[in-house]
Amino acid sequence: MPPQLRLGIAGLGRAFSLMLPTFLADARVALAAACDPRATAREQFARDFGAPVHEDVEALAADPSIDAIYIASPHQFHARHTEIAAAHGKHVLVEKPMALSLDECDRMIAACERAGVCLIVGHCHSFDLPYLKTRELIDRGEFGAVRMIHALNYTDYLYRPRRPEELDTAEGGGAVFSQAAHQVDIVRLLAGSRPTVLRAALGSWDPRRPTEGAYSAMLWFESGAYASLSYSGYGHFDSDEWMDWTGEMGNRRSPEDYGGARRKLAAAASPEEEARAKAAATYGGPAYRAPAADEARRRYQHFGPIIVSCERADLRPMADGILVYGDEQRRRVPLSAPAVPRHEVIDEWVDAIRLGVAPRHDGRWAKGTLEICLAMLDSGARRADVALRHQPA
Amino acid sequence: MPPQLRLGIAGLGRAFSLMLPTFLADARVALAAACDPRATAREQFARDFGAPVHEDVEALAADPSIDAIYIASPHQFHARHTEIAAAHGKHVLVEKPMALSLDECDRMIAACERAGVCLIVGHCHSFDLPYLKTRELIDRGEFGAVRMIHALNYTDYLYRPRRPEELDTAEGGGAVFSQAAHQVDIVRLLAGSRPTVLRAALGSWDPRRPTEGAYSAMLWFESGAYASLSYSGYGHFDSDEWMDWTGEMGNRRSPEDYGGARRKLAAAASPEEEARAKAAATYGGPAYRAPAADEARRRYQHFGPIIVSCERADLRPMADGILVYGDEQRRRVPLSAPAVPRHEVIDEWVDAIRLGVAPRHDGRWAKGTLEICLAMLDSGARRADVALRHQPA
Repeated sequence: MPPQLRLGIAGLGRAFSLMLPTFLADARVALAAACDPRATAREQFARDFGAPVHEDVEALAADPSIDAIYIASPHQFHARHTEIAAAHGKHVLVEKPMALSLDECDRMIAACERAGVCLIVGHCHSFDLPYLKTRELIDRGEFGAVRMIHALNYTDYLYRPRRPEELDTAEGGGAVFSQAAHQVDIVRLLAGSRPTVLRAALGSWDPRRPTEGAYSAMLWFESGAYASLSYSGYGHFDSDEWMDWTGEMGNRRSPEDYGGARRKLAAAASPEEEARAKAAATYGGPAYRAPAADEARRRYQHFGPIIVSCERADLRPMADGILVYGDEQRRRVPLSAPAVPRHEVIDEWVDAIRLGVAPRHDGRWAKGTLEICLAMLDSGARRADVALRHQPA
Repeated sequence: MPPQLRLGIAGLGRAFSLMLPTFLADARVALAAACDPRATAREQFARDFGAPVHEDVEALAADPSIDAIYIASPHQFHARHTEIAAAHGKHVLVEKPMALSLDECDRMIAACERAGVCLIVGHCHSFDLPYLKTRELIDRGEFGAVRMIHALNYTDYLYRPRRPEELDTAEGGGAVFSQAAHQVDIVRLLAGSRPTVLRAALGSWDPRRPTEGAYSAMLWFESGAYASLSYSGYGHFDSDEWMDWTGEMGNRRSPEDYGGARRKLAAAASPEEEARAKAAATYGGPAYRAPAADEARRRYQHFGPIIVSCERADLRPMADGILVYGDEQRRRVPLSAPAVPRHEVIDEWVDAIRLGVAPRHDGRWAKGTLEICLAMLDSGARRADVALRHQPA
């Protein structure tokens, strides 16, 4: 066994709590230190893992006991925190969206290259094995070229408890930064070709949540393929119905549950109370509950229904396999249940650090996804095409 | 009871056979005459209905025993045949697509206005009651404005038996003329606002069927709403799965049937043989079988999954009702099974002729849909927006 990757956590918020089952279950990593501005979160981390905690990223990055940092701070700090980690020679896994501007991405890529550390961006649902396997199936060539991709996702995203900045697009809030980041990344992976042009329309129709809650977009690729992407986070129709009632986290959903996010949110009388409720339910808060590991690993995670149309088959990545609709028959390529949720992130990161395998989700790749998300905002505002100029080959 | 509308049929092909269960079951109309270039079809009509038959539309239109003509000839003849019908003072129901050019639409509208006869265009799936009822529910106002529409349909359209011209876009063939005509019409109805701009991508990836088999498009409306439309007729994934396995004709589908269209088509060795097979299975041909009326009327017809996002609810028109996903609860507005399939076409036509009610699907409306279909072809070819200039208010 190679030595464990000793991990420092920058930010003990929701992203961390979603990665925690992975860090706990994957023997290749160890939780070795953390930082967070909230004392209660630091105290819980120290208690849970008997590990040192720090008040800021500088101190965490300077900690000689860690090899790598998972940057799960709010979006607007990703760039600065990555630079700090790299300056201290730590490998970086930074949450999506990579950053809020392409300049920030460039600084992050340069800082990590200068320091000779590995940078990958995730978790993003394009790491989910059903998408990676779909890409593998396409690469075998039997289905011919990808010609059209259709991706949609209808969730209650906008009504989950938020801090005010998460409802402010200028600060990296809203469905484009937070949700299109997943969908675009998956579609790029599946298309297997460089995106060239984007066109989008943005939806923002609840004045109490004044950011993008929905969008539709078209994306064209160098290969001639095109994709249609649609998203609504307005908490009405739920497209998990079309994913065998499997939730985004691979959890089983019940068709009978309806409107839960809005009902819970209605209990918060003000944005401050909502932010407090969110903090309370976050790691270190009084209402925090660890995710049930058993449930989380039942099926693969996903980001809504996707149909990839190749010349000789449609492929649908599902939470437990890939449905292949061929010319003559339909079959299911099964995937056994994941032993560790999101193990794909650790696979890629550890292979990159230990074996020098070029990671798929590196800084240049993730910058490409951010460019498309920014282009969606720009295209929606100007009602015009946006040519894409920063897409890796 | 008002007198029956005495109906002449121009063209006894597939469109006629799909309308036949309606004409047979709806007491408001009587099949009174027909024309078709095929002698076998004329003979069967004369036999089945004891009614006069004619060799061409001129003779049919001159027949004093009829009040109205259903024009179900191939697309490229719609304009000429409408002009002939109008010149003889017959009301017109013309199949979709209305015509192949906007000039043709103008000629048809002018001819019918000049003659003082009623012109409606259909059957088109926007007549299907679940869409009309969804529009009614929206009009009540409780859900707020329509903001986003998502329409998709995955079928085996391209592998049904075709005459060569049906696979030639220049002659009105392909998924845009034949299938987008439905989807666009439904989306316009549901949006309830004038479309302003369209953007599309076209898919044509089977060289043996060299026309559009797929497309994706975005459509913007004066109200600020936008729509995403996607279609594939390549016979792989079947989106009837997301319509409770109800087929386009309201028929029950079996998830176990797969690949039937391609399998049947594989028996035809050449385009000529395919055209002969199609003719054989058409009214008057040796392999023609009348549709089973019982089956056809089980549920409403549809054109694939559609989600209409209003400010306070998503609405999904289904084959047996409308699913309403509200802020607090989800409910189903049921529709009782149709006594007569496509009775909505006769409702609209008879109300227009007998009561002077302005029909929804009149020539100006249908010209608007044709403009959008033509814009899809243009937008796909030029990879650019197309501004819409002929949309009625």
